[in-house]
Amino acid sequence: MTDTETKPRRSAGRSGGRAARHAMRAAALADDVKPIWPGMPGGTYKPLKDSDLPKIHAAALRVLDEIGLADAPPSGIKAMTAAGARLGKDGRLRFPAKVIEAALAMTSPTLTLYARDPAHDLHLGGTKVHYGTAGAAVHLVDGRTGAYRDSTVQDLYDAARIVDTLDNVHFLQRPMVCRDITDNYALDINTIYACVRGTCKHIGASYVHADHVRKSAQMLHLIAGGEAEWRARPFVSQSNCFVVPPMKFATESCEAMEAAIEIGMPVLLLSAGQAGATAPVTIAGAVVQGVAECLAGLVYVNAVKPGHPVIFGTWPFVSDLRTGAMSGGSGEQALLTAACAQMHHFYGIPGGAAAGIADSKLPDMQAGWEQAISNTMAGLAGLNMVYEAVGMHASLLGFCFESLILGDDLLGQAQRCVRGIEVDESTLAFEAMSNVCLGGPGHYLGTDETLHRMERDYVYPRLADRSSPNQFAEKGSPNLVEQAALRKEDILSQPDKGLIPAQVDAQIRAAYPIALP
Amino acid sequence: MTDTETKPRRSAGRSGGRAARHAMRAAALADDVKPIWPGMPGGTYKPLKDSDLPKIHAAALRVLDEIGLADAPPSGIKAMTAAGARLGKDGRLRFPAKVIEAALAMTSPTLTLYARDPAHDLHLGGTKVHYGTAGAAVHLVDGRTGAYRDSTVQDLYDAARIVDTLDNVHFLQRPMVCRDITDNYALDINTIYACVRGTCKHIGASYVHADHVRKSAQMLHLIAGGEAEWRARPFVSQSNCFVVPPMKFATESCEAMEAAIEIGMPVLLLSAGQAGATAPVTIAGAVVQGVAECLAGLVYVNAVKPGHPVIFGTWPFVSDLRTGAMSGGSGEQALLTAACAQMHHFYGIPGGAAAGIADSKLPDMQAGWEQAISNTMAGLAGLNMVYEAVGMHASLLGFCFESLILGDDLLGQAQRCVRGIEVDESTLAFEAMSNVCLGGPGHYLGTDETLHRMERDYVYPRLADRSSPNQFAEKGSPNLVEQAALRKEDILSQPDKGLIPAQVDAQIRAAYPIALP
Repeated sequence: MTDTETKPRRSAGRSGGRAARHAMRAAALADDVKPIWPGMPGGTYKPLKDSDLPKIHAAALRVLDEIGLADAPPSGIKAMTAAGARLGKDGRLRFPAKVIEAALAMTSPTLTLYARDPAHDLHLGGTKVHYGTAGAAVHLVDGRTGAYRDSTVQDLYDAARIVDTLDNVHFLQRPMVCRDITDNYALDINTIYACVRGTCKHIGASYVHADHVRKSAQMLHLIAGGEAEWRARPFVSQSNCFVVPPMKFATESCEAMEAAIEIGMPVLLLSAGQAGATAPVTIAGAVVQGVAECLAGLVYVNAVKPGHPVIFGTWPFVSDLRTGAMSGGSGEQALLTAACAQMHHFYGIPGGAAAGIADSKLPDMQAGWEQAISNTMAGLAGLNMVYEAVGMHASLLGFCFESLILGDDLLGQAQRCVRGIEVDESTLAFEAMSNVCLGGPGHYLGTDETLHRMERDYVYPRLADRSSPNQFAEKGSPNLVEQAALRKEDILSQPDKGLIPAQVDAQIRAAYPIALP
Repeated sequence: MTDTETKPRRSAGRSGGRAARHAMRAAALADDVKPIWPGMPGGTYKPLKDSDLPKIHAAALRVLDEIGLADAPPSGIKAMTAAGARLGKDGRLRFPAKVIEAALAMTSPTLTLYARDPAHDLHLGGTKVHYGTAGAAVHLVDGRTGAYRDSTVQDLYDAARIVDTLDNVHFLQRPMVCRDITDNYALDINTIYACVRGTCKHIGASYVHADHVRKSAQMLHLIAGGEAEWRARPFVSQSNCFVVPPMKFATESCEAMEAAIEIGMPVLLLSAGQAGATAPVTIAGAVVQGVAECLAGLVYVNAVKPGHPVIFGTWPFVSDLRTGAMSGGSGEQALLTAACAQMHHFYGIPGGAAAGIADSKLPDMQAGWEQAISNTMAGLAGLNMVYEAVGMHASLLGFCFESLILGDDLLGQAQRCVRGIEVDESTLAFEAMSNVCLGGPGHYLGTDETLHRMERDYVYPRLADRSSPNQFAEKGSPNLVEQAALRKEDILSQPDKGLIPAQVDAQIRAAYPIALP
């Protein structure tokens, strides 16, 4: 139950004068002075009292010991009973507390999710926060018109290419299903291929079947430059819905998880109950169930291969109880996700959950507040992996490129909040106040301190507009979504970056049914 | 430095069966089962470490002792030097620490801001959260077209009428300037009148001149039913910008403040520096200056009348340092405001600050995330009075009715987050899980527990849309802002509610230059 943190990377030293500053700003901002960065520590927001955490843990242990989980595959039953789980006559696996504690002890408090470009490696642990896409949307939403159509493999590749350009989106988990590919094997292969070709950031993907996982290994080796290279820096993690809440293993997904362990692919243990439908209606109860299910998953993985890298994926969702439909954009969702982050810290293991989902069908004001509330709370709570953080509409049914691009600004702002407030002699600013007020200019504009902090402490949005009403009118009152659409078109008009070299691509195409031209 | 809290008002008892539940839902939801309510305690989010708070306090004390404030009016100098402040040869008043501590000791940890309808009284203290309007916008924004025009007294009256209908907007501080009234005396009088006629919630207003405060007293007595009645339950507080940051008293505003004290009107001591322009560029430094200025104000008020009701109004704003323009919609703003709430709790006195400001010119996705991030963080931080929370665009230059109405949904969601997570044996839900999983239906839909909590624990938005893409399309893809405009038209088509009885109205019109027909 450690909570390792990183310090802000930068010194508070001053820069070397006005000319240097101007030169600095003229160039792209160097990484070490950017005001926000992936992996900043959160944890300033704690929806649960510290005394609540052991209560939730105790409830989860009781659930695992007395209720247990049904429907484990034979291989899982064998591995988990060998680790100490009990198989009941009702077919449910039940877990004594010591079995859970043993699995927790085998789980590393830190985990690196590799990217093909090491600059994008994600160092999970403590309260370090990363934001990215995720989901299984079946529609692509036209931000301009709000029209929904089936999502395609080209859309997935385009999503990856856009994510590759967005500073505040740190990883790409597959957000959409390629509905133009009906064969399940081809679907799994093309999903990986489209993501890998589009971005050099870390990728998360799902698989329909264990065989597909094994068959995809060769492609991953080709891209990595060999099996050893892949196993040293696996750049794809498997998002695995290993349970069907409440408290049943998803048999085929468990088999796919075993295959991921075999090929050295990190596993996101994803429990996606829905409060009031497939999870208890109370927020605390939905957390208990999600935690219990993921703890069972942790036993499973460690029984198969001790210490295999795992993301503790408590992803409870929320129902609109009037209809039973999911409401990922609700305040209840934001609370659920933030509470899960606290449980990850309680256990001291890397975790992820879902935030940033809009119930709104398009990128309007509702979408803005829905995405912002849960993303901000997840970040402030110190969630390691904020999945679904951007682009997601209609409670996960639709993915929107314009929203993805605007979401980069939204996430930048959330990340500025995660960075928080530095308090030291320099930031307390007595000298600055004294200089300004006692014989000084009476304002802080243009002081060295102000100029120094202009790019280091302050985040500026790219598309969000801060001009005055007059300036805005003079610009022709630019529509926000239209601006995002223009940026999208600019990004997608660029040629393929060659992230998969031609020779490798040819080898892949010789071995796999690649759909993208 | 107390931190009094209220418990949730409701028992966790179950309701009396299905028929009773159906009857309950058919009627308007009774107040005691609503999922959110004014004054819920926040405080789960703490951007500053506990150890930072005394550092900020110490820095503020040093600022007050060594830098002090210029430009106090003669009456203020007299009162504050009598209380122990030192007048320097440079004209600045400086404050020894003991003078500050004495003023803090004279300030009550709780404060009731009365409303004409006692159901809307605001009980400030601890981390209890209330949201409302505020500001001095000079434009009314047409949500449909984005057009800006000068705001009028009719707009202010309409804003008050809309606020009167919105559950999640707890008070009306004047959000717009009546630009059709050019005489300053008439402006001050008509501002109060338009607000009071439009809503029975607590009202905040500004005054241009001390004489206007005194002259308005008779109107307030008429409305209250007499001077004693007004003084017993003053339903208007004075929003007073008593400083011109950095560290100067605003002479005329101070005189208006003294007049407010005279007539028994609570005072919002409002320090509105702008980080990087009129306040230090660092967040910590801007908090220090705002706290120092408000502490000086606290000395001032208590020197004039010990224990006069005061809201500690640290309202630091943020500059976009590229232009020097204000950016109320930024992440830096959200942090500033939340940090101020923590300082209010440190002192154990009621406080307010600004959140919910959009830089966007109209109610679009940008406005949604800008309003949401700061409002949510202010609420989670436990800010007593969240001013500017709704309707505010273009960094306070424009007020928008459609945004105000949509903001009611946004604030409902923020308030659900403030309510937080109850953890007890019932919410941990072991029995519910056991019943559902072991021989039960395998899901939680329609269980007694789920139905019981459907209206008590879950917040449902009024205009925000949660339907599926197909349902949404079948409804004709309703535009969110258009829905808000239709609701606005419905509210404003209702006849005046007679909040000022005809006889009183006639007396007011005989004594004052009332502009509204």
